[in-house]
Order: sequence, then C-alpha cells, then structure tokens
Amino acid sequence: MLVETDAHEVARIARAEAMKGRSVGFVPTMGALHEGHLSLVRRCRAENDFTVVSIFVNPTQFGPTEDLESYPRTLDADCAALEAIGCDLVFAPRTEDMYDSDHSTWVVVEGLTEVLCGRFRPGHFRGVTTVVAKLFNIVRPDRAYFGQKDYQQLKVIERMVRDLNFGIEIVACPTVREADGLAMSSRNKYLSAEERAIAPALYAALAKAAEAVRGGASGRQAEEIVRRELAAVPGFELQYVEAVHPETLERVEEAGPPMVIAAAAFLGRARLIDNVIIES
Amino acid sequence: MLVETDAHEVARIARAEAMKGRSVGFVPTMGALHEGHLSLVRRCRAENDFTVVSIFVNPTQFGPTEDLESYPRTLDADCAALEAIGCDLVFAPRTEDMYDSDHSTWVVVEGLTEVLCGRFRPGHFRGVTTVVAKLFNIVRPDRAYFGQKDYQQLKVIERMVRDLNFGIEIVACPTVREADGLAMSSRNKYLSAEERAIAPALYAALAKAAEAVRGGASGRQAEEIVRRELAAVPGFELQYVEAVHPETLERVEEAGPPMVIAAAAFLGRARLIDNVIIES
Repeated sequence: MLVETDAHEVARIARAEAMKGRSVGFVPTMGALHEGHLSLVRRCRAENDFTVVSIFVNPTQFGPTEDLESYPRTLDADCAALEAIGCDLVFAPRTEDMYDSDHSTWVVVEGLTEVLCGRFRPGHFRGVTTVVAKLFNIVRPDRAYFGQKDYQQLKVIERMVRDLNFGIEIVACPTVREADGLAMSSRNKYLSAEERAIAPALYAALAKAAEAVRGGASGRQAEEIVRRELAAVPGFELQYVEAVHPETLERVEEAGPPMVIAAAAFLGRARLIDNVIIES
Repeated sequence: MLVETDAHEVARIARAEAMKGRSVGFVPTMGALHEGHLSLVRRCRAENDFTVVSIFVNPTQFGPTEDLESYPRTLDADCAALEAIGCDLVFAPRTEDMYDSDHSTWVVVEGLTEVLCGRFRPGHFRGVTTVVAKLFNIVRPDRAYFGQKDYQQLKVIERMVRDLNFGIEIVACPTVREADGLAMSSRNKYLSAEERAIAPALYAALAKAAEAVRGGASGRQAEEIVRRELAAVPGFELQYVEAVHPETLERVEEAGPPMVIAAAAFLGRARLIDNVIIES
C-alpha cells in the first residue's frame, strides 16, 4: 500500500491505473477510521480494481467554535487498518498543500445545504463540497463511496456530481452501528463512559419514529416522538429533528413513507447525528 | 469533424482519445466565432492530438438586463470554420441539457471576481466558472485555451483550476485585433457603421496609457489618460478603466510595469472591453 502526501503524485498514479483500463474507486475520509469507514473501503475494493482512500481533516468544513483542533487523528492506526483490508493508495495531504494561502474558490450547493445540519453549521457544506471537488479532480475515480450516516452530505455530493458533470458514480452505503445501535462515528471518542451508555437513545428514538411512520404517522408526529423520547434521557440536548423527503430534503407534509428522519443532538462535548431512511 | 449535443457522448469520445494516449485540447466558446477564437483553435490543434471546441451561449453568465437573447448565434458558419481548420469535435449542447431545472451548484471565485467587470456584472463570473467547471469535467482536457482579451476571465479560470486541482494547463493567447486595432469580439456585430469607425479609440487610448506606463507613469496617471482620450470621442461611454496588478488584479500604487490596464465602454448597444498587458 502506497501512502502519499503529494497531490500530483496521487493524480499521476491514479491516471496510470485508469490508462491501464483499471477502474478506480475512492473513499474520502477525515481519518480516525472505524468500522463504518472500513465497510466503505471493503465495498470499494470489491467493486474496483484500484482503491484510493484519502485521510484529511479538512479545516474549511469546521466552524470557528467547532472541534477542528481536538478532532481525533490516528494516521498510523488508520494506515495499518487500510493495509490489512487491501487498500492500494492512501492520500494524506498536509493542510498547506491542499489550500494555498490565497485560496479563493468554493463549490456551493444551494438549497439542500440550507436545511438540517446546514442551519446550524453555516459554511460546513461549502467546505465539504469544495474539498470533495478537489479530491475528485485529483483522484478522478470511477466510483466514490459515502456513508448514509451523513445523509445530507451524501445528497449534497450527489447533487454536486450531477450539476458539475463529474461523471463519477456515487455509491451510498448503509450506516454501520455498534451492537447497541449507536451509529459509528469518529466523534464517539468524545463520549465519557456514562455518556456512551446512554448514547444509543438517539437511534432508539429514531427507530421508534420510523416504526410509527411505517404505520402511517406524519412527519410532524415522527419528530414529536423523537423529541419526547430524548427529553426523557437526561444529558441529551436535541439540536434538531426533521422528517424530510429523501431527495429534496424538504419537510414532508404527507404521512407515511418515503421519508428520512434526521436528528442532531449534543451529549457532553459530542455532537451526534443519525437518521433513519424509510422507503416507500 | 464530429458535432455532438450530448455531454455523455462527448465525455466518452474524449476519454477514449485519452485512453489511446492522445492529448486532448479544449477551446470553450459561446460561438459567433471570429479570428480570435480561430487563433485559439489553431494553437490547440498544433499543441494537442485531439481538439474539442464547445459552442454554448451560457445563460448563467448573463445578467437579467444583458444581451442573452440577442447574442449572435451562427452555429452552421461556426462549424464550417472549425471543420476547415481541423477541429476534431464540436460540443454544442442545448441549455436544458446543461442545466437541470433544479440546478443548484455553483463554483465561485472570491476576490478576483469582485473587481473590474465583476463590479458591474454581478453573477457573471459565477456563471463563467460554473459552466467552465462543467465543461472541464465533461471533456477532461490536458490543455484549455483562453484569450487575453477577457483578461479577468483568464485569471479567474487560472485560479479556479489551481484551487480545485483540475490538473489542466491553461494556455493564455494574445488578443487578436482588426487592422485598425479594435479587439475582435462577437459583440462587435452590434456596432453601426459609424460606431465601428470610432470603436478603435478604446484600444488607442489603452495603448497610449501603456506607453506612458512604460515611460514610468503611475496607474492613476494611466487611467487618467484613458479617461481623457475617450472623453474626446463622442458616443463612447466609459464604464471603468483600472490599472491593476497582472496577477492579483488589485489597483497598483507603484508606477511602471508590471501592470494591466483594463477598460469597459459602451458604444451604442455594444459593451466593449479591452486591455493592455505591460510586462516588467
């Protein structure tokens, strides 16, 4: 497995693979890899001839009061895990190599980024789409893999790829959960033992709301279930819960599926997000 | 010469050329081709194995009061001229194939787009960078050719390519002029015979200012020369003249080169732009 910090070298290697007629798959990450990331990489491996994983804690997607400094960085362990499952190339650039001091170009997706997490993290998705556009241009993959845990991010990336004609297949992969239901996240490391014990309440609330929607409940009723369930768990501070259309991310007025119920909640210093996708 | 309206087909053809190890050159245009465009295509031909020219009057770079409807469209003549000089592939998409009805992704370059023409054409450069990003992703050229007549556009595209890691060489080509000095432009067709007769005054004023700068004049003095010269020509309405640094496009305080003096002026219903590049 190659580990490269230089974008030109990564571009050169990936182009050479493509020139040999080999398909290139790509998994962009911020490192601190867990089983969720690894499930993306395994699927990428299975579906492509050459697998590239990027590890880059992208500063432009963090707000000024967010956890850029404390975000977990575990590059050696990440590389060991990636090598063990057969990743071909890790791209781990330095911040100064990704952003010139006079960087001034941004990729912006309107609409989809202004709801859900976008309401509380201004500039977050602009940072995500910009860095993913950069990474896509460097790697030029045939397919790129994203987890459904970050559902809004997935939809924003899909829109960007369509609107800017990237010609890359975006593969959505199911959220990977701990045995007790907690969605895997690098930020789970922020949880104390006590917080970790109650953290599964977020998914439990969403699952209960999803069950109600399958039984014909409305989006408003589903949101109310999540609010009520989490209010009963001391320590959880719900930031938002919204029942939205799976594609437009607009609040749904009609009862029943299709629907995505997405929520963000603080638990100690961790901001947890999760969602349930209820297909029609 | 192939003429294609379908982006997927253009992408397929261009990728196939690249897979054969052939270099792909690209000239994006809005059609109504003149000798300035053709000089770009000839250079592209000379420097690449496969030449793609796009012809697309991009609606998102026109303001609501601008000339989108009346912009000259001469597709048949354009294709004949391109075939005659050996263009390989023309991409002439329809507007509805380039922009979905819920298109919502924009590429924005800050700073460089807020001066010169950007002050008077809000949203113009956002439209330019977005459509060029789309075209770059469709064609994936090794090199792309832009005229220096649209100097600010050239610098904005160069910045976008650097910031988003497009990995495309941007080739800047000199402005092509009529015998009397008027910069070639598709919008020159808007000029009446009387207006056409006095139109070279814009370049004459810029050339006089450039001469002064080479002799040690300041940017402010150069701007004053252009203002004075054009004020003496009835019918010209100067929109702006600015002496700026060739890379940052910021007003220069120091006298002498390097400097770009750029101006826009209305003459009848035509908005003419031109510039002189004074190298150090």
